[in-house]
Amino acid sequence: MDIRLPFVKFSRDELPVGTPVVGMVGGGQLARMTQETAIALGVQLRVLAEGPTVSAAQAVADAPVGDYKDPETVRRFAAECDVVTFDHEHVPTDLLRALEAENVKVFPGPDALVHAQDKAVMRSRLDSFDAPSPAHQVVESAAEVADFAKRVGGFPIILKTTRGGYDGKGVWFIDGPDDADIAVAFGSGVPILAEEKVDFVRELSAIVARSPHGQAVAYPIVESVQRDGICVEVTAPAPGLAPEKAAQAQQTALRIAGELGVVGILAVEMFEARDGRLLVNELAMRPHNTGHWSIDGAVTSQFENHLRAVLDLPLGSPAARAPYTVMVNVLGGDVEDMHRGLLHCLARDPGLKVHFYGKSVKAGRKVGHVTAYGSSLEETQERARHAAAYLTGTIDE
Amino acid sequence: MDIRLPFVKFSRDELPVGTPVVGMVGGGQLARMTQETAIALGVQLRVLAEGPTVSAAQAVADAPVGDYKDPETVRRFAAECDVVTFDHEHVPTDLLRALEAENVKVFPGPDALVHAQDKAVMRSRLDSFDAPSPAHQVVESAAEVADFAKRVGGFPIILKTTRGGYDGKGVWFIDGPDDADIAVAFGSGVPILAEEKVDFVRELSAIVARSPHGQAVAYPIVESVQRDGICVEVTAPAPGLAPEKAAQAQQTALRIAGELGVVGILAVEMFEARDGRLLVNELAMRPHNTGHWSIDGAVTSQFENHLRAVLDLPLGSPAARAPYTVMVNVLGGDVEDMHRGLLHCLARDPGLKVHFYGKSVKAGRKVGHVTAYGSSLEETQERARHAAAYLTGTIDE
Repeated sequence: MDIRLPFVKFSRDELPVGTPVVGMVGGGQLARMTQETAIALGVQLRVLAEGPTVSAAQAVADAPVGDYKDPETVRRFAAECDVVTFDHEHVPTDLLRALEAENVKVFPGPDALVHAQDKAVMRSRLDSFDAPSPAHQVVESAAEVADFAKRVGGFPIILKTTRGGYDGKGVWFIDGPDDADIAVAFGSGVPILAEEKVDFVRELSAIVARSPHGQAVAYPIVESVQRDGICVEVTAPAPGLAPEKAAQAQQTALRIAGELGVVGILAVEMFEARDGRLLVNELAMRPHNTGHWSIDGAVTSQFENHLRAVLDLPLGSPAARAPYTVMVNVLGGDVEDMHRGLLHCLARDPGLKVHFYGKSVKAGRKVGHVTAYGSSLEETQERARHAAAYLTGTIDE
Repeated sequence: MDIRLPFVKFSRDELPVGTPVVGMVGGGQLARMTQETAIALGVQLRVLAEGPTVSAAQAVADAPVGDYKDPETVRRFAAECDVVTFDHEHVPTDLLRALEAENVKVFPGPDALVHAQDKAVMRSRLDSFDAPSPAHQVVESAAEVADFAKRVGGFPIILKTTRGGYDGKGVWFIDGPDDADIAVAFGSGVPILAEEKVDFVRELSAIVARSPHGQAVAYPIVESVQRDGICVEVTAPAPGLAPEKAAQAQQTALRIAGELGVVGILAVEMFEARDGRLLVNELAMRPHNTGHWSIDGAVTSQFENHLRAVLDLPLGSPAARAPYTVMVNVLGGDVEDMHRGLLHCLARDPGLKVHFYGKSVKAGRKVGHVTAYGSSLEETQERARHAAAYLTGTIDE
């Protein structure tokens, strides 16, 4: 157990009467951005941080450092909070079940969260209520991989670790029965899921928020662009998406949130297949990169609705405020001082919104994002892309 | 000197390269709301707080407690920051002059700030470049008060303390030569300014941001409603204000910011006199209550532009995002738990934006504000007024 716990600068009786105290496990940029809206709502946000100087620890008053895998650490953290929620999905399910058994409010609860932690559990559950998935199968040998490939019309297929993958890590594209990555995947030590490689025209994301008493709201469906497994760009709403398809995607996400009993934000990443199907790719039960546009682009941001949901407050309108909102991630490049580029970017575009995460630059690391909104899709995309490229040093001018 | 200084959780080398560190003197709601935007901009905000649990101390990582009137305390605080700015205007001018002499960046600087600290200095300076003021005169006796009244057409007139007044405190309405408040005013121990009681149709506010190298932006002119000297409601833009009058008000504020060398936000409260004149009432050199609408209602909030200005970053667009934005203050009433009312208010109005300040309820105290925006003036006003009244307990339903 980490001896620095509990570190509570603010006990409840030092805060105004009725102040909700929300504990977020994990001190990354999602917790950091949650703090922006927690301040406005008068919610005291506490963060269980991986270290004293992580992203969110720079931005909150109470950020005790502790191991989120240690039951006693998480228990002591939870004791200081009205509700516990998450910046990431890595807290062990059993630990959360134990907390729930002790009447700690954990949102999303372990029975929901397991579907974002374990892809095999997720696929099996989605199948049970006919949510549309790519063909899939848990595989235990190279022979089963080959059989699966045969069943879905041949290679290439995809192998995924069922637990612990993120941002493209734990995903292998398998070109044939002798692909060396088959052995790499099975060497990862966790069960492996094989999936059909969907022939898709683009990726979409459906974000919904759901509260404990079952109120839910659905954000506009967005288009996301991934590079090397990392989300790099999001356009809201997804350009040219037929209204009935957008509604179908929202309904799928709302159905999943309801069936799984999600509380908080649920992000459903989907493929828009060339044959017209919308297929569920991944689930996340927390504010999600494909929802960052909502900070500047929606009436209520995903972070605010996540807080409202876990506190069982009425949810806010997810409506877009502008015809188009485009978010582009700022990934670590050659430039170490991210702030210097602001002099140019902010002067060039007085409507640009910049979000830095308090993270030191490392190659490919998400260190921030920029958002532009407007009525012209092309111009809005150009503004956001330009700013991100300039800040990372990809372009100079 | 307060022995708890320096309390620096984050030294510069623990933050990403280039991270600006802004020190704000004073831990009220203005510092608290500044933190929302500091987080997004990747600015590390430090607050010199009046106590360990004040409004902004609940919302930032570094909030050392210390006396802002003590030179050594402020000096040590400033040593940890790239620039020092203010949540209030009460830091002694001489102390700031001493800091500036030691090459500390202080924005707004003492030579500008003194005009927001001393109403006699302000009036004299505005006269020097013919900025429109009510008739005024420093008075030292009841006889001089009577003479001044004669000069402006008779009683009633207004007396003001030249230093230290706020939210209606230090202002007396004098009905005649025998008014008992004349003695009260002279008993306050600071020089007294007499002013013409302007016959106004409404109060307006012009907010501008100005950076050290002289870039400036002007927000839309708003109408503010005061009750007992406290701002209670702001509508942006001021309904029915002729465009040429709005431009005139913006130009007056920009002129004042330039002449006085203001860096950061300057709020110019004005009277729209019945005879059509726009007269300067008060100046504030910090984010201002009449600019809170900009958090949800403008492309760039006053808090973000204040930070950008003091860091000499290019300023953001002050344009409104909706036809009308209405902000209503939540003042302490009979309800102690301000959060309980959210259940009703947020359900009734999914577009409502709530801002709580982390302050315990006291009668008449500003404990938060609500903002609504939309295309119908009447409906938007009704939404914001209703929410504020419900939260404070003035209405029930």
